[in-house]
Amino acid sequence: MPSPIETLTEYFSEFPGIGPRAARRFVYHLLSKDAEYAGALADAIRELKKSILQCRLCFRFFQNGASQKLCDICSDEHTDQSTLLVVEKDADFENIRKAESYSGFYFILGGAIPILEKEPAKKIRARELFDRVQERAKGGALKEVILAVGATMEGENTVLYISKILEPLAQKYNLKISSLGRGLSTGAELEYSDRETFTNALKNRS
Amino acid sequence: MPSPIETLTEYFSEFPGIGPRAARRFVYHLLSKDAEYAGALADAIRELKKSILQCRLCFRFFQNGASQKLCDICSDEHTDQSTLLVVEKDADFENIRKAESYSGFYFILGGAIPILEKEPAKKIRARELFDRVQERAKGGALKEVILAVGATMEGENTVLYISKILEPLAQKYNLKISSLGRGLSTGAELEYSDRETFTNALKNRS
Amino acid sequence: MPSPIETLTEYFSEFPGIGPRAARRFVYHLLSKDAEYAGALADAIRELKKSILQCRLCFRFFQNGASQKLCDICSDEHTDQSTLLVVEKDADFENIRKAESYSGFYFILGGAIPILEKEPAKKIRARELFDRVQERAKGGALKEVILAVGATMEGENTVLYISKILEPLAQKYNLKISSLGRGLSTGAELEYSDRETFTNALKNRS
Amino acid sequence: MPSPIETLTEYFSEFPGIGPRAARRFVYHLLSKDAEYAGALADAIRELKKSILQCRLCFRFFQNGASQKLCDICSDEHTDQSTLLVVEKDADFENIRKAESYSGFYFILGGAIPILEKEPAKKIRARELFDRVQERAKGGALKEVILAVGATMEGENTVLYISKILEPLAQKYNLKISSLGRGLSTGAELEYSDRETFTNALKNRS
Repeated sequence: MPSPIETLTEYFSEFPGIGPRAARRFVYHLLSKDAEYAGALADAIRELKKSILQCRLCFRFFQNGASQKLCDICSDEHTDQSTLLVVEKDADFENIRKAESYSGFYFILGGAIPILEKEPAKKIRARELFDRVQERAKGGALKEVILAVGATMEGENTVLYISKILEPLAQKYNLKISSLGRGLSTGAELEYSDRETFTNALKNRS
Repeated sequence: MPSPIETLTEYFSEFPGIGPRAARRFVYHLLSKDAEYAGALADAIRELKKSILQCRLCFRFFQNGASQKLCDICSDEHTDQSTLLVVEKDADFENIRKAESYSGFYFILGGAIPILEKEPAKKIRARELFDRVQERAKGGALKEVILAVGATMEGENTVLYISKILEPLAQKYNLKISSLGRGLSTGAELEYSDRETFTNALKNRS
Repeated sequence: MPSPIETLTEYFSEFPGIGPRAARRFVYHLLSKDAEYAGALADAIRELKKSILQCRLCFRFFQNGASQKLCDICSDEHTDQSTLLVVEKDADFENIRKAESYSGFYFILGGAIPILEKEPAKKIRARELFDRVQERAKGGALKEVILAVGATMEGENTVLYISKILEPLAQKYNLKISSLGRGLSTGAELEYSDRETFTNALKNRS
Repeated sequence: MPSPIETLTEYFSEFPGIGPRAARRFVYHLLSKDAEYAGALADAIRELKKSILQCRLCFRFFQNGASQKLCDICSDEHTDQSTLLVVEKDADFENIRKAESYSGFYFILGGAIPILEKEPAKKIRARELFDRVQERAKGGALKEVILAVGATMEGENTVLYISKILEPLAQKYNLKISSLGRGLSTGAELEYSDRETFTNALKNRS
């Protein structure tokens, strides 16, 4: 039977960006604390899964305040009905929300599609996105779906795939499918910009 | 009298990005070579200043092939007459040219304007740019000046300053003064994008 | 009341080397797993504190195999009785043990003493170390205490402090108090070595 | 014919640690200076090779002050006659001299011997070292040769090779051949020390 130190080291090694050495340091960190502290942490982990729900419309994680099934944005009648912004994951959503420059609905894809992926539909919530867009477009409120994914090869692949899937809805309901503008990101210098970035920045000049 | 090792170390310390330790290693590198090698390098340095001219229109450095005074772009009649792209320095020009997405004239500013700079006109070729734009606009060929500087605080400051200087010409000759588009540069991920980059990328979506 | 996401983010932010952003990613990692996984992790954390004991002689953490109170090294009669190697923390012990070049007893100080620390005795197990050394020296078995701390300012400060504390025992029982040799560590190059390292390496040449 | 920009970029690309991009920036740096500056730099490079000699005893580079053939250390009668410290290169010598903890003669090997090198004698001044040691030992003044090379695989390989070469002299003249002590270098922490470093530090404890 593996020692609890080994078991816990393995759990922590699965944390994003954590190797075995850092995982082991986490374990020693816990050992240096008293049993009460460890108990409280264990409780917080259990509590997380109990009290955090996933919104059935946008798939964001949110705290279940009043036994509702929808997150604060999806259930807020002041949310701009005309746009749906599609992101890869909750951390992207959080960062975007901080920018305070978007006021419509969101949708969490739950991933991106690697290049040459054989089963793209299994990597993201493709079916759920289709249903959600259809439902909102049917009523006539939704005008635009904004694909807000990274400017990476995976991201571009994901944009291609989703665009194809949403194409029938776009035609039927006269929806715009857009993606984020490319150009110089803050801090970019021209001496080090790649060809694609400059070409996009030139095209999008204003 | 300082030793030649010290003297040369100081010269190399002025090279961009080189500290005293690296400069010293350069000197030892030269010492490890024979006198012929050092002589050839010294010749190449002298030759550089002799055979490389600065274009009197765009201020790029270029090799004097046929005793002309203009660089290959400024003297090429196929160059697109309607646009002038303003960059900070030669290295920016070289990188942009590799992108092969621009076919008009260039202008090398020779620097950028730091925030709170008291004498901005001395930091860049402001007067020369004004004259060059006026000359090209007078004939009616020039339609747009594109300010292609980095998306940094210095860069934005430079854009503001140049825009103000060129304003009278823009009005008189109906010129467009544009700057490069902001948005996601290649490789950007939304989880780590700053507020400004996302906001620009959202605004420039397409 | 803070959300469980915030609560857990704060816990993870206390993990060594983890900032708020990485902590938040850990939380999303857990949210992406099912409740069973989270439960198992919570159990492993509780179990850690239950089944891992701290040896009452050397203060190492160890797994309680047979209800004993001593770790495998302190309870092993083959352990070399003549030396006691003092380290800062469990991770140091683990790394040293892997080197397989030491076969005596250990003692975990539980920390190091910062420069100018006003209450050094509270930073480390000074009292416990004194008692342990006295107990082993009284019987005549212990001949040497090896202070194996980092070659840092804190480490040197700790060596000074412990040496002073153990001085009476060293005299009374004719104990040697030693510390690890200084010199070139593996991979060190002379061009980049600091003055102290070279001077020590020269002194310890062989 | 390549442009002087290309030619000079290639020269600078041979400087230690400099890639093509940095080399190009050096060229633009020179272009931004006037011809006088470039001329002075070219002169300094020529001057370097003219006025810096290589000591015929220790092979250090030194400035030819009074038409002498020996460097200040080799020609100084106060230099400790009993030790000769062998280093790889001038930069090592400079760093060691700053430590001010050695007062004997030096010898610059001019390199190190890579693992599996087929012609080790061509990589370093093996013959010259043998002669120099023999000459100093014959008179009876030299007592010890200190091999001060990096604690790297190349360095250890070099120590092995030189030790073998000097072995006959060591026996004949009762010379000590030593190498720098291994152990914790300044700043080293035990949690991250490799097995060899700890083992050496334990062996060299004091």
